[in-house]
Amino acid sequence: MVIVLNPEVEEKEVDKMKKKIKELGLEIHESKGKNYRLLGLIGDTSIIDPEIIEANRNVEKVIVVQEPFKKANRVFHPDDSVINIGQKTIGGKKLAIIAGPCSVESKDQILNIAKNVKKSGAGFLRGGAFKPRTSPYSFQGMKEEGLELLKYAKEKTGLPIVTELMSPNHLDKFVEEVDVIQIGARNMQNFDLLKEVGKTGKPILLKRGLSATIEEFLMSAEYILAQGNEKVILCERGIRTFENYTRNTLDLSAVPAIKKLSHLPVIVDPSHAAGLWWMVEPLSKAAIAVGADGLIIEVHNDPANAKSDGKQSITPDRFHTLMEKLKKLAQIEGKEL
Amino acid sequence: MVIVLNPEVEEKEVDKMKKKIKELGLEIHESKGKNYRLLGLIGDTSIIDPEIIEANRNVEKVIVVQEPFKKANRVFHPDDSVINIGQKTIGGKKLAIIAGPCSVESKDQILNIAKNVKKSGAGFLRGGAFKPRTSPYSFQGMKEEGLELLKYAKEKTGLPIVTELMSPNHLDKFVEEVDVIQIGARNMQNFDLLKEVGKTGKPILLKRGLSATIEEFLMSAEYILAQGNEKVILCERGIRTFENYTRNTLDLSAVPAIKKLSHLPVIVDPSHAAGLWWMVEPLSKAAIAVGADGLIIEVHNDPANAKSDGKQSITPDRFHTLMEKLKKLAQIEGKEL
Amino acid sequence: MVIVLNPEVEEKEVDKMKKKIKELGLEIHESKGKNYRLLGLIGDTSIIDPEIIEANRNVEKVIVVQEPFKKANRVFHPDDSVINIGQKTIGGKKLAIIAGPCSVESKDQILNIAKNVKKSGAGFLRGGAFKPRTSPYSFQGMKEEGLELLKYAKEKTGLPIVTELMSPNHLDKFVEEVDVIQIGARNMQNFDLLKEVGKTGKPILLKRGLSATIEEFLMSAEYILAQGNEKVILCERGIRTFENYTRNTLDLSAVPAIKKLSHLPVIVDPSHAAGLWWMVEPLSKAAIAVGADGLIIEVHNDPANAKSDGKQSITPDRFHTLMEKLKKLAQIEGKEL
Amino acid sequence: MVIVLNPEVEEKEVDKMKKKIKELGLEIHESKGKNYRLLGLIGDTSIIDPEIIEANRNVEKVIVVQEPFKKANRVFHPDDSVINIGQKTIGGKKLAIIAGPCSVESKDQILNIAKNVKKSGAGFLRGGAFKPRTSPYSFQGMKEEGLELLKYAKEKTGLPIVTELMSPNHLDKFVEEVDVIQIGARNMQNFDLLKEVGKTGKPILLKRGLSATIEEFLMSAEYILAQGNEKVILCERGIRTFENYTRNTLDLSAVPAIKKLSHLPVIVDPSHAAGLWWMVEPLSKAAIAVGADGLIIEVHNDPANAKSDGKQSITPDRFHTLMEKLKKLAQIEGKEL
Repeated sequence: MVIVLNPEVEEKEVDKMKKKIKELGLEIHESKGKNYRLLGLIGDTSIIDPEIIEANRNVEKVIVVQEPFKKANRVFHPDDSVINIGQKTIGGKKLAIIAGPCSVESKDQILNIAKNVKKSGAGFLRGGAFKPRTSPYSFQGMKEEGLELLKYAKEKTGLPIVTELMSPNHLDKFVEEVDVIQIGARNMQNFDLLKEVGKTGKPILLKRGLSATIEEFLMSAEYILAQGNEKVILCERGIRTFENYTRNTLDLSAVPAIKKLSHLPVIVDPSHAAGLWWMVEPLSKAAIAVGADGLIIEVHNDPANAKSDGKQSITPDRFHTLMEKLKKLAQIEGKEL
Repeated sequence: MVIVLNPEVEEKEVDKMKKKIKELGLEIHESKGKNYRLLGLIGDTSIIDPEIIEANRNVEKVIVVQEPFKKANRVFHPDDSVINIGQKTIGGKKLAIIAGPCSVESKDQILNIAKNVKKSGAGFLRGGAFKPRTSPYSFQGMKEEGLELLKYAKEKTGLPIVTELMSPNHLDKFVEEVDVIQIGARNMQNFDLLKEVGKTGKPILLKRGLSATIEEFLMSAEYILAQGNEKVILCERGIRTFENYTRNTLDLSAVPAIKKLSHLPVIVDPSHAAGLWWMVEPLSKAAIAVGADGLIIEVHNDPANAKSDGKQSITPDRFHTLMEKLKKLAQIEGKEL
Repeated sequence: MVIVLNPEVEEKEVDKMKKKIKELGLEIHESKGKNYRLLGLIGDTSIIDPEIIEANRNVEKVIVVQEPFKKANRVFHPDDSVINIGQKTIGGKKLAIIAGPCSVESKDQILNIAKNVKKSGAGFLRGGAFKPRTSPYSFQGMKEEGLELLKYAKEKTGLPIVTELMSPNHLDKFVEEVDVIQIGARNMQNFDLLKEVGKTGKPILLKRGLSATIEEFLMSAEYILAQGNEKVILCERGIRTFENYTRNTLDLSAVPAIKKLSHLPVIVDPSHAAGLWWMVEPLSKAAIAVGADGLIIEVHNDPANAKSDGKQSITPDRFHTLMEKLKKLAQIEGKEL
Repeated sequence: MVIVLNPEVEEKEVDKMKKKIKELGLEIHESKGKNYRLLGLIGDTSIIDPEIIEANRNVEKVIVVQEPFKKANRVFHPDDSVINIGQKTIGGKKLAIIAGPCSVESKDQILNIAKNVKKSGAGFLRGGAFKPRTSPYSFQGMKEEGLELLKYAKEKTGLPIVTELMSPNHLDKFVEEVDVIQIGARNMQNFDLLKEVGKTGKPILLKRGLSATIEEFLMSAEYILAQGNEKVILCERGIRTFENYTRNTLDLSAVPAIKKLSHLPVIVDPSHAAGLWWMVEPLSKAAIAVGADGLIIEVHNDPANAKSDGKQSITPDRFHTLMEKLKKLAQIEGKEL
């Protein structure tokens, strides 16, 4: 950590600051230029909140050299994490493909889709039971009944279930019945919910917030890890920008960035990113080519009549074709599908 | 609602769609141009989720003429809402000034600040007890103890308390002890929490999410209103943009926009928007000039040693000077301070 | 074009508006709902500037059904455009790889790099002679001398030259000496420059502006096409967002979007998008997988001492390895390198 | 300037780097932490391009302590600049109000508006002769004829003329006939044009680019100043964000930011920022309250029939009312109108 001081700071103010820093057990290297003055802090600076230093009126800025995340940091965990989910894994050589409808709508619907995506090679079944919707008047999901139907589809197909948790009130039920608990983009900084899922031993699929930086995304993962739960899977799903041809702007650069900064697996959600079914194929291929550990894709047997997100859902047939193409791509990337 | 069809749509597909729409009790006006075909829906289209229509592959886009919010909509409630909080109000002729520290830190601190801001004319005391922090390793607030200290400061000064709720787990306590429940920017789309506070009769201060559009902001208010709680106060606190000289970009245009669209009161938070104490004064003046119903300002007796947000906090003295300037401004705007 | 009127508009105002529209030779279909009133315009509405209609205080919004670009529109030109550049092409089955240094720095440098990238399979040589720099005090390029060195490298290697034009003052020289004239991101809406290059018959590489929507990008291409020059190649190079881990956010969704909307070829610039040399490989692969017609990549023999953009330049060795990987990828995409 | 090195850098690489830096006449202070290593550069580091240092693979980041702009920097010019334009000024105690139509459309139109805005107290006349339009098919302005009409209106009213220059081809004419040359937002980084106007002695009104940071904005001003022209007036006119209720998001925080960083005057354009006529009044008031040196406002006698930007233009009557309100505001701000 380097503290940039106002060059006109009074000497006694600098002394006060240095005294405080030394009391924390850190050493200081000073530098002075024509127009600036610096204090370089040496030692474990992670105990210092840079904001507190910045509040000092004599400080112009604080430069943090170390990343603020620890357990999520590749520096302290050089190997890729592989998350075990029953017999399956996310991370590592095998690409994880999670597929299914935006919302669970009926027994027939979820079973039909589950069977289809399994046949095409998907490893996990997604499906919303509790749905975060912009409008209180939109369909809010089948809730508990939706969970039951997901369990039923799992029984019949063996596919582990991925579904979103929106409130700590449902946590116990989710821990019991769900294989991967999803935390949605809108709750990425719902810190209380992150702490709660951090106390479970369940795999957590954490989606990037619409306006979260990569660093904030990793800090939210850190909230879960800090509670002792190391099974975190990250998901890039598009960020909000000025461009609105697509619903969000898929930030594929985030994949190599996260791979460099962290050991956690990263998957990509092309469906929510683009919001356009015909973009799912090219974006899925790009996600694999850029190095993602998997994909989460919305598949619906009848998109035109889906209760939510029909516009971005692909049919099981189209999903099947996509999987064929991804197989070839996986191969040249040294991965398996 | 107007449905723009692919001009090459087959006639039988159009017939199917028209049949469905008519079954909902709506009438249809068709238009056909050289390169387009439209269905204009007539009747109460609020029962239709435009996304479901857009999922139809023959539909190019759906144009929604009515705003999606109802209870928050000025069309159905032409007069400004005024929220009563004990003897005080937010909305209407009297400007609401909420002031206090980012975090409650000690009995002395909160009491000292409360007394000072009251003397300068503040109407409400803010102070964080449960703090949403990007890092799990940062100070998370004094929690229940912080609430106790806020209550104590209220007893001594009579200032109603405004503080943030982060989890439904603390709702009962907040309903009992807090005057205005704040929902923070990061939880603006924590829909379960919105529903919970919507079931109480407490005034809710809802902050705009970092990347929320004005429409989404009003839809989140609608979640609270739809549960029967009409006491919603909106707060513009800066949006995330590419500019990072300031922490966020204060969107003052949102104030007249919300005033036009909705009857709910709107206040402005210059402290979090800029993240810079020396910008609080000019931005506060601009907020009043643009038509805001009030301000929420971070004031700290010792910013350089604040446990959070010291960089953006002003001292009681500076707050006092600011209030003097705002009084003059309020007067020429036909408002009172 | 559909005009959404204020539902409380006076009848005489509607009549005035309808009269004006009919004078333009258009027909009108009216629709009236409980809360809205629409005028659907039928005929060639491209003669109407929607902004002028929107200025009418009785108009709430104008919905444009047709895209505003014509010559760039795939509707009127269903086949992919292939641009001929000497013996080479951009667009079509063969991927175009443009490689070279950010700036031309010396005869040795440009020749060395040109030979290397040619050996690895690049089809075109890039190199900046006139450089747009944020600071007036930064190196501004070798200018005319740089052009001479590019010509020399072309003579020796046969690689066509791609370089940026910043001012109409140099247009004649560029027309004579350069194979592909690049218009940089910062000049994407320098409309006078677009008109000037539109009057030449030269291939134009048009880079997307930092905050340009896809529609605006195509409208800038339209400026060139409207002058009679149909040889426009588009280049996605990252947009400006709140994320600053990367210099810009590469918007790969723009590639399938443009492919759907337009017949013009689209290439991707991973170097400027990320600003990080180690991201060039994954982003290049993703760009090909998403359907781009080619890449423009910064290659430098000594990045640590480059006069500009060294941070994002890869070495000839790394470029060679990348090309090997791209070959495999091209093959499964049905393309050639 | 502080160079943050990869902590595992080899010693000989550090030595090489230090040698180079010393050759530039700078001194070095080294700091070493557990996980980092720093080189603090002492002396006039403005001669070093930080990008070149960052290109070194052993460098993690370069921290620039000094702002990159010099002539625009308040540090080297503590007093506010006041720009003289004939008998008038921009900057200082007197607020500059520039008003007029988006485009000059006819002799009657421009003269009528000029007389009206003068009567209400405007100090300058704006009017577009050469218009930057997104579409090549939109009205591009009356060009030379428009300039003639502006001159005519100036003769009749005495109001100095502010109008936009789009190409160096018209520079001579502008130098002769125009009082303030405007560089539009889309040309803010048209560096060749900036250099050209920097060589004249004319006052330049430089508008902020849609996605320009405050630092980039000041660097563009620096391009003009570096050529010897010190008469630069900055104009905040809204930035591009995800919010599209308004055309752009007016960044009023930029005003106090620029005032802190630079001595140049800053005015605000509420018309282009919002794109909505009914927002002009509240945003104008906010701009004055936040500390702007003036306003540039679109006024049109018949907005519903304006050839461009009618939607955001106010009528002369409304302008008159606005000026009355601004007078009161100016007074309490210690300014004159």
